[in-house]
Amino acid sequence: MKLQIFYELIIILMSTKLLGLLMRKIKIPEVVGMLLAGVIIGPSVLGLVETNEVLDIFAELGVIMIMFAAGTETDIKHIKSSGKASAVITALGVIVPFGLGYVVASLFNGGFSVGREQMISNMFYGVMLTATSVTITVATLKELGQLQTRVGTSILSAAVLDDIIGIVVLTVFIGLKSPNVSVIRIIIRIVLFFIISYVVGSLSRKAYHVLEDRNPGTRRNIIFAFVNCLVFSYAAEKFFGLADITGAFFAGIAFADLKESKHLEHRVDIASYLLFSPVFFASIGIGTVLTGFNMNLLWFGLAFVAAGLISKFGGAAFGAKICGFGNDESVRVGLGMMCRAEVILITAQRGVNMGFIKKSFMPFVILLVIVSSFITPILLKLTYRNRNNKLTQKSSEV
Amino acid sequence: MKLQIFYELIIILMSTKLLGLLMRKIKIPEVVGMLLAGVIIGPSVLGLVETNEVLDIFAELGVIMIMFAAGTETDIKHIKSSGKASAVITALGVIVPFGLGYVVASLFNGGFSVGREQMISNMFYGVMLTATSVTITVATLKELGQLQTRVGTSILSAAVLDDIIGIVVLTVFIGLKSPNVSVIRIIIRIVLFFIISYVVGSLSRKAYHVLEDRNPGTRRNIIFAFVNCLVFSYAAEKFFGLADITGAFFAGIAFADLKESKHLEHRVDIASYLLFSPVFFASIGIGTVLTGFNMNLLWFGLAFVAAGLISKFGGAAFGAKICGFGNDESVRVGLGMMCRAEVILITAQRGVNMGFIKKSFMPFVILLVIVSSFITPILLKLTYRNRNNKLTQKSSEV
Repeated sequence: MKLQIFYELIIILMSTKLLGLLMRKIKIPEVVGMLLAGVIIGPSVLGLVETNEVLDIFAELGVIMIMFAAGTETDIKHIKSSGKASAVITALGVIVPFGLGYVVASLFNGGFSVGREQMISNMFYGVMLTATSVTITVATLKELGQLQTRVGTSILSAAVLDDIIGIVVLTVFIGLKSPNVSVIRIIIRIVLFFIISYVVGSLSRKAYHVLEDRNPGTRRNIIFAFVNCLVFSYAAEKFFGLADITGAFFAGIAFADLKESKHLEHRVDIASYLLFSPVFFASIGIGTVLTGFNMNLLWFGLAFVAAGLISKFGGAAFGAKICGFGNDESVRVGLGMMCRAEVILITAQRGVNMGFIKKSFMPFVILLVIVSSFITPILLKLTYRNRNNKLTQKSSEV
Repeated sequence: MKLQIFYELIIILMSTKLLGLLMRKIKIPEVVGMLLAGVIIGPSVLGLVETNEVLDIFAELGVIMIMFAAGTETDIKHIKSSGKASAVITALGVIVPFGLGYVVASLFNGGFSVGREQMISNMFYGVMLTATSVTITVATLKELGQLQTRVGTSILSAAVLDDIIGIVVLTVFIGLKSPNVSVIRIIIRIVLFFIISYVVGSLSRKAYHVLEDRNPGTRRNIIFAFVNCLVFSYAAEKFFGLADITGAFFAGIAFADLKESKHLEHRVDIASYLLFSPVFFASIGIGTVLTGFNMNLLWFGLAFVAAGLISKFGGAAFGAKICGFGNDESVRVGLGMMCRAEVILITAQRGVNMGFIKKSFMPFVILLVIVSSFITPILLKLTYRNRNNKLTQKSSEV
């Protein structure tokens, strides 16, 4: 068993890193490379690695570390200061994709008057589309020197809000899995979990602060923070019936916005990228079956991808427009929010685990990640080039 | 399963860190605290955590990371420069403990004319005693401002040599496990492995250097180094029938003494202390059974502890004396080499896994770690106090 795991880790780490770097060369997120690596080494193609219990645990720890890190990056003060605009952008950028995702799924899966289970499944396609991942957008705006603009800061804040709303929605749906649980009950559980998280999180935050104050940069501090992450994840699932990633995310928020947060995140990040997150992304690829295709699934998948792009773009751009952004700015906000990466993958994988989403649908989720991360930077740059052309034209006219 | 592992990791990380810090307060190595934590949370006392396949894999990755880090710290240039003295100190500091350990084990286990299997087992008690861990010695000498003396540098070099010889001896004995394998064959295998390791290691070292040169401090570099560690560990066991830790150690040596080694070691270290090495040390404690005691085992164990202290002290001190060290200096070298910690634990655990050592003997190995790490700094400080007293007397006489 030990040697088998060593062997599998060697294959996973090498292939994910190589393909990840390759993707980066052509400006596609590394995550896509890791997924492809998983598909290639998995039973669909080469059959070198199969999922097993140990790899599953590694993958699970990987997701938790990713969500914990995302939590520590959640700058709540920043959201408050950037105000109403990002709230409206997020709201419309969540509601429209959710709605359109649900409609598309319903059209392909038995219409709108179906049983509870099928309805939840159809809605879950909408849930997946609410996610956003703005890493590529941020990199592109940075490259263009446009990150410190109204467009840039709105996208950043909206992305953080999007994560929070996304995890709450996901949590509700995971709660809905048990057939006899009402939405009200789940919401009560969530609220209860949030209150307790807030209290415990505040205490942990203080304790962490004292620890860092007394012994800056020591191992005990990061272990303390990581144990918190594990405890929150464990408690969320075990005692509240919520998702473990919800717990990890809230544990991360408890440690956000401290002067030591960067340092903490950096150290958790090392453990994460050295082993756990490659295993996670590869295992999605390994679990992706390229069989069970038929025309209905193909059209459904393509409609889903199109809906994902259009709805997020439309919702967010419309939100920006309402808040008084210009046409160009609104388009940029829409394009910036359109991109998908880690979050939709994590959500989709939960969906598969819960039985909401068929395994054979995963390729289309991956397709959405690839397409959106491919066209977002191109289109964003185009909008700025147009403006520059206009400016150049204007100045040549003068 | 996932939730159970989360729960076990929470218990292990919290208890090892708390007891580790507690031990440090009373100047005993943290490792001892981690072992005790394992004993307490394990089936012997509280029964909160039992070993399972996933934890075993974590522990195994922990040992590999520890040995890899030890390898990267192996400064071969330094040994060459410190010359003959440390070679003689190491040689006698290995031979005498090995001999005495074997004699003591034989006296308690059937005498000297026993079957092959029992003889190998008896010899393995000697193998365990060859290990040294000079962390505490180094800290003590640093505190006394005596690290940059002849005593200090000899101990440091001898400790590195000790690690190398120790791993070779351990490797031979692990090879001897198969009943039909001759020593010659094992030595051929080891030599073959060393040659191939040297060639592949040199290439990896160059590749790593190029990687760091082109993209300093990027993730791909550390993943490359870590994959090397896994490949060496895997190949050593799978293709050469040696121990995986031998492979990890040699992979580490390949990356030693580069200007980036510290950086590399630091990053592997984070993953190690955040999860893997606490699980490893705790799992030794969890596997330590406090049953099966009888008077014979008790006397054997105590004799083993005494032999461990006396033989290492005597051997190393005698070696120093031969090389022209003064009496005081020789005593200090002997005391400095006497300390045991990680290495003997790793060796002993392999011995248990291989069936050479009975599980019920582990408490005495732990006892040797505790006693040696407790008395080494006290005695070392005493030898320097005596000298200071003499100096003071002398100067008052003048």
